[in-house]
Amino acid sequence: MYALPIARLIEEFAKLPGIGKRSAERLAYHVLRLPREEIAAFSEALLAAKDQITFCPVCQSLTDATPCDICANPKRNHRLICVVENPKDILAMEKTREYDGVYHVLHGAISPMDGVGPEDLKMKELLVRIHEDGADEVIMATNSSIEGEATAMYVAKLLRPLGVKVTRIAHGIPVGGDLEYADEVTLTRALSGRQEI
Amino acid sequence: MYALPIARLIEEFAKLPGIGKRSAERLAYHVLRLPREEIAAFSEALLAAKDQITFCPVCQSLTDATPCDICANPKRNHRLICVVENPKDILAMEKTREYDGVYHVLHGAISPMDGVGPEDLKMKELLVRIHEDGADEVIMATNSSIEGEATAMYVAKLLRPLGVKVTRIAHGIPVGGDLEYADEVTLTRALSGRQEI
Repeated sequence: MYALPIARLIEEFAKLPGIGKRSAERLAYHVLRLPREEIAAFSEALLAAKDQITFCPVCQSLTDATPCDICANPKRNHRLICVVENPKDILAMEKTREYDGVYHVLHGAISPMDGVGPEDLKMKELLVRIHEDGADEVIMATNSSIEGEATAMYVAKLLRPLGVKVTRIAHGIPVGGDLEYADEVTLTRALSGRQEI
Repeated sequence: MYALPIARLIEEFAKLPGIGKRSAERLAYHVLRLPREEIAAFSEALLAAKDQITFCPVCQSLTDATPCDICANPKRNHRLICVVENPKDILAMEKTREYDGVYHVLHGAISPMDGVGPEDLKMKELLVRIHEDGADEVIMATNSSIEGEATAMYVAKLLRPLGVKVTRIAHGIPVGGDLEYADEVTLTRALSGRQEI
């Protein structure tokens, strides 16, 4: 039997996604070997993140400012809204340095299999936001999974009555990717999305 | 850019062994979705383990009692010492319900490649312990890796002058294991360790 404080720590680690019993044991023993101040820093970071991070009231991203830096930036185009599944997707978009609009984070995608419906996402917030502030274009940048596609279609249907232009980011062969290594679905999307040159 | 408290939390997760940048991000976002009391429990478990767990002064295992439950148990044979690499190995031995001796945890194995020498292990403690309290038999149950073997040989050499019987646990085909799936090294050990029936 593990001593109780070790058993508890293993249990806590094992609750994390993707961490099994064995990994949890390894992590717990690793932690016990760390200097106390390093463990204290970890321990504090956990609660600090929870206490200081909130949903941005505008775009629903995670932020320690209200509203978030992007929503508060007057240089961004606030009538161009890019809808993503997760806060991390904003980072990917920002790395392009090409996008000057704002975002809306749904915090997931519609997935009947996992019991995730529109009411579990920040969908209502998107509707209210566009209803109140308006928008010229909403770019659906949800993932190209079945769930991401379904979510994009669902949002497009919702926004059509509001007279908002809804677009979908392009899918196709990755830049630098060889045609022969592309899967059929990607290739099909690349074909149907072809443009005149 | 991540909000600072998220960046800090990701950094803390990424410091853990076997957790890369991507997993750390995933874990941080997972934590943010948890109720505050669950995060507080995790946060407390980290420090509680560090604060309440110490090395048992006798066997060097990790414990919240002094000495540990096994060392304090008068029903165990304190003249039979099983030497293991890690505290977890004690759990494996205890599961057999066959062993009634006590333990000594080295906290690793000699590994010149990783810069781990005898002085980095609880080797001196083992020597002092046997010198002071004596022992009838020391069972080397270090792993069957090169490091575990080297450590077993090293301890045997150290204890020989003290007149202590040093034994090594048997290695061979696992019970229920098929001969055809056994690797050469295991099979060689199984052959050389053969006993008359």
